[in-house]
Amino acid sequence: MARIVMKFGGTSVADLDRIRNVAARVKAQIALGDEVAVVVSAMAGTTNQLVAWCQSLSPLHDAREYDVVVSTGEQVTAGLTAIALQAIGVEARSFCGWQIPVSTDGQHGKARINAIDGADLSRRMGQGQVVVVAGFQGIGPDERVTTLGRGGSDTSAVALAAALNADRCDIYTDVDGIYTTDPRIVPNARKLARITYEEMLELASVGAKVLQTRSVELAMKERVRVQVLSSFSDEPGTMVVDEDEVLEQEIVAGIAYSRDEAKITVRKVPDKPGIAAAIFVPLAEANINVDMIVQNVAEDGTTDMTFTVGKGDFPRAMAVLEAARAHIGYAEISADQNVAKLSVVGVGMRSHAGVAGTMFHTLAARGINIQVISTSEIKVSVLVAAEYTELAVRALHTAYQLDA
Amino acid sequence: MARIVMKFGGTSVADLDRIRNVAARVKAQIALGDEVAVVVSAMAGTTNQLVAWCQSLSPLHDAREYDVVVSTGEQVTAGLTAIALQAIGVEARSFCGWQIPVSTDGQHGKARINAIDGADLSRRMGQGQVVVVAGFQGIGPDERVTTLGRGGSDTSAVALAAALNADRCDIYTDVDGIYTTDPRIVPNARKLARITYEEMLELASVGAKVLQTRSVELAMKERVRVQVLSSFSDEPGTMVVDEDEVLEQEIVAGIAYSRDEAKITVRKVPDKPGIAAAIFVPLAEANINVDMIVQNVAEDGTTDMTFTVGKGDFPRAMAVLEAARAHIGYAEISADQNVAKLSVVGVGMRSHAGVAGTMFHTLAARGINIQVISTSEIKVSVLVAAEYTELAVRALHTAYQLDA
Repeated sequence: MARIVMKFGGTSVADLDRIRNVAARVKAQIALGDEVAVVVSAMAGTTNQLVAWCQSLSPLHDAREYDVVVSTGEQVTAGLTAIALQAIGVEARSFCGWQIPVSTDGQHGKARINAIDGADLSRRMGQGQVVVVAGFQGIGPDERVTTLGRGGSDTSAVALAAALNADRCDIYTDVDGIYTTDPRIVPNARKLARITYEEMLELASVGAKVLQTRSVELAMKERVRVQVLSSFSDEPGTMVVDEDEVLEQEIVAGIAYSRDEAKITVRKVPDKPGIAAAIFVPLAEANINVDMIVQNVAEDGTTDMTFTVGKGDFPRAMAVLEAARAHIGYAEISADQNVAKLSVVGVGMRSHAGVAGTMFHTLAARGINIQVISTSEIKVSVLVAAEYTELAVRALHTAYQLDA
Repeated sequence: MARIVMKFGGTSVADLDRIRNVAARVKAQIALGDEVAVVVSAMAGTTNQLVAWCQSLSPLHDAREYDVVVSTGEQVTAGLTAIALQAIGVEARSFCGWQIPVSTDGQHGKARINAIDGADLSRRMGQGQVVVVAGFQGIGPDERVTTLGRGGSDTSAVALAAALNADRCDIYTDVDGIYTTDPRIVPNARKLARITYEEMLELASVGAKVLQTRSVELAMKERVRVQVLSSFSDEPGTMVVDEDEVLEQEIVAGIAYSRDEAKITVRKVPDKPGIAAAIFVPLAEANINVDMIVQNVAEDGTTDMTFTVGKGDFPRAMAVLEAARAHIGYAEISADQNVAKLSVVGVGMRSHAGVAGTMFHTLAARGINIQVISTSEIKVSVLVAAEYTELAVRALHTAYQLDA
């Protein structure tokens, strides 16, 4: 007997037939003798509709009222799922965030979970009841409804699994696991049986949008074993686990890409201490996240600073730099939004040399120019012209012997 | 300065433009120096959709989960209305039933309000904040969400007005008041400036579906002055008030009709004590409401009992009577669903004779046969063949000098 949290995303509960399918899956899990808590998202499309209404009434709407509106999507699914479970003879009861409670901080619209009281849920599960929890929502210190930000139901599920000491948190979605890269670009990409938290974090943050980043961070912190799998097939999915659980570690787990970055180069700034701060502090104060950074020193005592920001932040970043022109003292700014970031990720590269070299060599052999490089302990990322994205991903996938 | 509860029904908040219209109306009320609490229904169509989902998943669904699902409609409108108010500079905050709290009994799906804690709302209104309350919902003794049954937002509004000691409860709807009869049948029906609670109750229960009956009962009990008016015009509506407030009482306030009744005649039952109980107790036990009753005694020691039930209960009523045949000892049952109930309502008839006579005379002059008669202190109702409905309503409207 195990204790399992089963989380179903928006496409898995998109209509009544799919909610019946969810109920059947939960019943099958119960039939194995397991205790089950279910976490549900809003029916696909619902949250977008609710968000659009709030935006339309007021672009600068009160985040507390936004939370009142958008949290209803998950409440509807929780009630309907409980009804669907009862209809096939499974004892079930729904819970809203405020009923458990799922206590969050007061950052409405992007709240963080502080604590989940699992005592009552635990007791009910021990008595054979399936508890169905509305994901994405909680209650703030002001006793008002909060939401966790887009994709927050993954975080709800992982946090609930931690609070319930669950053996596993199964995230049901519309893909059947984590692949070595995007199968739309590389048809012979392989599904991974296992991946470490660290690798998943790097893959999630560079564009493989299967799991919300915060949910992976939380799973790593709380050591929650997460499985990503499809609600439309019976195949086993991908386990996201601690490094210790992965015995034969591949050097490279996967190749990720992101077309969501824009490159900015600040040219001919005085090469003196404090110049990086002059550029990046104003950006940070404007809440703009800077990703890759590279600095080239010229011989005339000036330097060029190149970095990337998210495309959504690009116009604001340019405005901030324009406003700080006198303070920074640069000659000109150039920018390029037609770029893509390619990342090779794997915990095995800690103990294996040559991973970066293989990347540079493979891209050079295809005539692909590398504009910026950044590395972490388990990742090498490069910025290239966006038009090369598919070619580069396929070449790297083959070079690291990831093809099925 | 007055304290006003403004309640907006589903058609008044059917889309974002209408919610903006609601906000503008509230702002205009505030501009008069009034304190305002707003009660909102779900956007038109929303509740039907949510109910249909529950029904589709399980016709015998858990009413507690049904409440979780259907209560979300009003929550969405409450949040959106608060945003729309803030967008035009009106300080506003939404409240769900559980937050106030609106305490109800535990009859999920058709709960009754036990108490509303108005202290916090009162304080906020005193500080100039508009409180926007999700109608139709409360919280039960089990700390779960309850709903009040269809049309329950009217009851929410009246109960809130009582809890807040409001000067008036304005019910905004898609008609601009209470008419002397249905204007679709009698184009020169008149809008009433005032009507008493008692008259409104009789009119509501016989088919003029403007206000939920329970809300009128509650208004009468708590002496809440209710105004029915349109959210689409600036005309004053109809005030529903205590009899003392109506100085020059018309004898007849209005003519109502209902095609929602079916007539059942149980023939040749023994004319002895206890026979009415033998017929009506089984119906009551099956939760079937019996409306008009008439008994004819024949000379052979038997009697015919004729009565009406709602059309929705008709098949069950017939089954109950069939099952009790031996116990009742009747010869046969006949039934007719092609009937209509016509009612003449007015508190003035307490002190004026001849109201019933005018009705019988008017119908007889048109060759309309009266099948059943029932009377109360302020109402005379007759059952006639349904095909005469419009003819009879028009004739009575003229006979009682109600034409505009």
